[in-house]
Amino acid sequence: MGNRYSYQSLLNFVKNIFISIGCSDSNSKTIAEVLLAAELRGIPSHGLARVKIYLGLWEAGRITLNNKTKIIHQTISTATIDSGNGYGMIGAKKAMTLAINKAKNAGTGWVSVMNSNHFGIAGYYAMMAIKENMIGITMTNASPLVAPTWSTSKYLGTNPIAVAIPAYKHKPFVADFATTPIAQGKLALLERKGENCKQGFVQDKNGLPSIEPSVLKKGGAIVPLGSDYEHGSHKGYCLGSIVDIFSSVIGGANFGPFTPPQVPFLPLLNESTGKGIGHFFGAIKIDAFRSATSFKKSIDKWIDTFKNAIPARGYNKVLIPGEPEFENTEYNLKNGIYILPDVKKELIDIANKYNIITPF
Amino acid sequence: MGNRYSYQSLLNFVKNIFISIGCSDSNSKTIAEVLLAAELRGIPSHGLARVKIYLGLWEAGRITLNNKTKIIHQTISTATIDSGNGYGMIGAKKAMTLAINKAKNAGTGWVSVMNSNHFGIAGYYAMMAIKENMIGITMTNASPLVAPTWSTSKYLGTNPIAVAIPAYKHKPFVADFATTPIAQGKLALLERKGENCKQGFVQDKNGLPSIEPSVLKKGGAIVPLGSDYEHGSHKGYCLGSIVDIFSSVIGGANFGPFTPPQVPFLPLLNESTGKGIGHFFGAIKIDAFRSATSFKKSIDKWIDTFKNAIPARGYNKVLIPGEPEFENTEYNLKNGIYILPDVKKELIDIANKYNIITPF
Repeated sequence: MGNRYSYQSLLNFVKNIFISIGCSDSNSKTIAEVLLAAELRGIPSHGLARVKIYLGLWEAGRITLNNKTKIIHQTISTATIDSGNGYGMIGAKKAMTLAINKAKNAGTGWVSVMNSNHFGIAGYYAMMAIKENMIGITMTNASPLVAPTWSTSKYLGTNPIAVAIPAYKHKPFVADFATTPIAQGKLALLERKGENCKQGFVQDKNGLPSIEPSVLKKGGAIVPLGSDYEHGSHKGYCLGSIVDIFSSVIGGANFGPFTPPQVPFLPLLNESTGKGIGHFFGAIKIDAFRSATSFKKSIDKWIDTFKNAIPARGYNKVLIPGEPEFENTEYNLKNGIYILPDVKKELIDIANKYNIITPF
Repeated sequence: MGNRYSYQSLLNFVKNIFISIGCSDSNSKTIAEVLLAAELRGIPSHGLARVKIYLGLWEAGRITLNNKTKIIHQTISTATIDSGNGYGMIGAKKAMTLAINKAKNAGTGWVSVMNSNHFGIAGYYAMMAIKENMIGITMTNASPLVAPTWSTSKYLGTNPIAVAIPAYKHKPFVADFATTPIAQGKLALLERKGENCKQGFVQDKNGLPSIEPSVLKKGGAIVPLGSDYEHGSHKGYCLGSIVDIFSSVIGGANFGPFTPPQVPFLPLLNESTGKGIGHFFGAIKIDAFRSATSFKKSIDKWIDTFKNAIPARGYNKVLIPGEPEFENTEYNLKNGIYILPDVKKELIDIANKYNIITPF
């Protein structure tokens, strides 16, 4: 399979890495499942490339292994969870499970998580709601790289939102997107290649448009979705701010510029406005509004309608949110997951260090 | 005051117009309050300019006066309201009130409205939650003018989202924005002036970039927030779709291309996928997650932090979502609301037709 390896072999491998540092079997499995879900869906920036970073955070003493998660506040439809500074996946999966259970009883469930860390792809948790006939929602804040409109201060993360909506015969509608025009991973890739980017992704230290991917290291910033004020970047700034406030201020995590860096090579900040980074999860039981079956049949009709929209010149079809990721998943399950040579090398080094058998 | 008139005189005037056609005092007051809130906040496209259109919809037999709103489904944290095809404000205000009452008990409240019509500015309803120490959320779908990424089919409205978040000493954080780079009103204004727009707002009938504001009449479309695929318009398409599905499919209103036009001069469609247009409302009780006081003090700190962000070259300050609208409100309450000559003429004609005393 060239540099392609089976989902199951990679899942076991990643699980064993986290077991080897002292993580419980079940926590290690959760971390591995979320990282591999990113690989299956075709988002490698949130997959195996994170293993080394996650281990580095633990080695730097920034992660509590086998963290105790604790519900610190709740009502019939809400809860706040202190995630005990563990790997983000562990608290996040528990939080979404709690949101789903609350929704079974109250119609909807909403859970805020504070004192957490990077949790992988937002879509993983939103999609947990699908099989319960619920809509799932996930938000998280993230290390600050984005400047508000008219500013040069890097005060927001790429703050993603994921929404998963069940259909009847069709695959679910799954939107999972950063609230910026470009992800940091893509900029880093251009930088490595020595290429420039188009205008509308980054600005320089004065807030002027730039095409240099490396500008972030020179006081520059990523701009919000919309690119500039004229094209609605203040709307992207609003969105990123909403995700920041929902993820952090509601539960008591650090907001905006105080968000702790999720890579070991950046120092922690002196000032904090809460604990760790934060996430926000929602589960909406469909039949709290109308029959789930008639809703899902309407979603099928929505999907059929948009699939049959007329393509613009030069395009063959109109995509439904989540469609490319389901296609990637199917392909990668069948043909194996492709691993970048750099990442493979990192994983082999880790395996040697922790004495683990690799699937390579 | 030139073409400026006091809030109270305009409120009474608009209220009297709707009373004169047979609307109840209280419904007329609700309609007038929401339209005037748009004027105060500096969004005249959703204010007095709508009076003629709203009357036209009623004259065309498309609006049920003094509609009966009815809860057709509910749980402890949710409800679906059939708005009885009335003016959108009437069902919308009842729905947000219900969401707030549910949140008092369940921690959060979520109300879907179907069989409705244009409801004015989304922010009005979201802001109703503020004084209850709640976060308010509003969405609505709207007449289809926006093409999904890679498509030429006008399948989505400008589908706005509003989120209002209470602060302690500061004015609340209020984001209220369409999920497109530009509002239709601004395009219409450019067209009247015979001016072109910049690239990134509209596309022609083939889906190619255009700078002609009139292109919408020639098979063109508004593009989603992000402007083009490279700059993340698929994220704007996701957002617009989420607003569409939450507003329509959850409660049983028409989705996307089946949304009935909210102007009397466009014909109704033959096919429907639900009833009327739809809205979605949420109320989140802050102390369902943590103490409302400490939350609001954190929001003050968030606002102070972002207010003190370093301005980009050529700018004096960084704005907080909602700040310009609060400034406009203060100014307009003090100095009167400016009325465009065109709109004033329309209102005088209406007053003559329905025998109402004008404040002019």
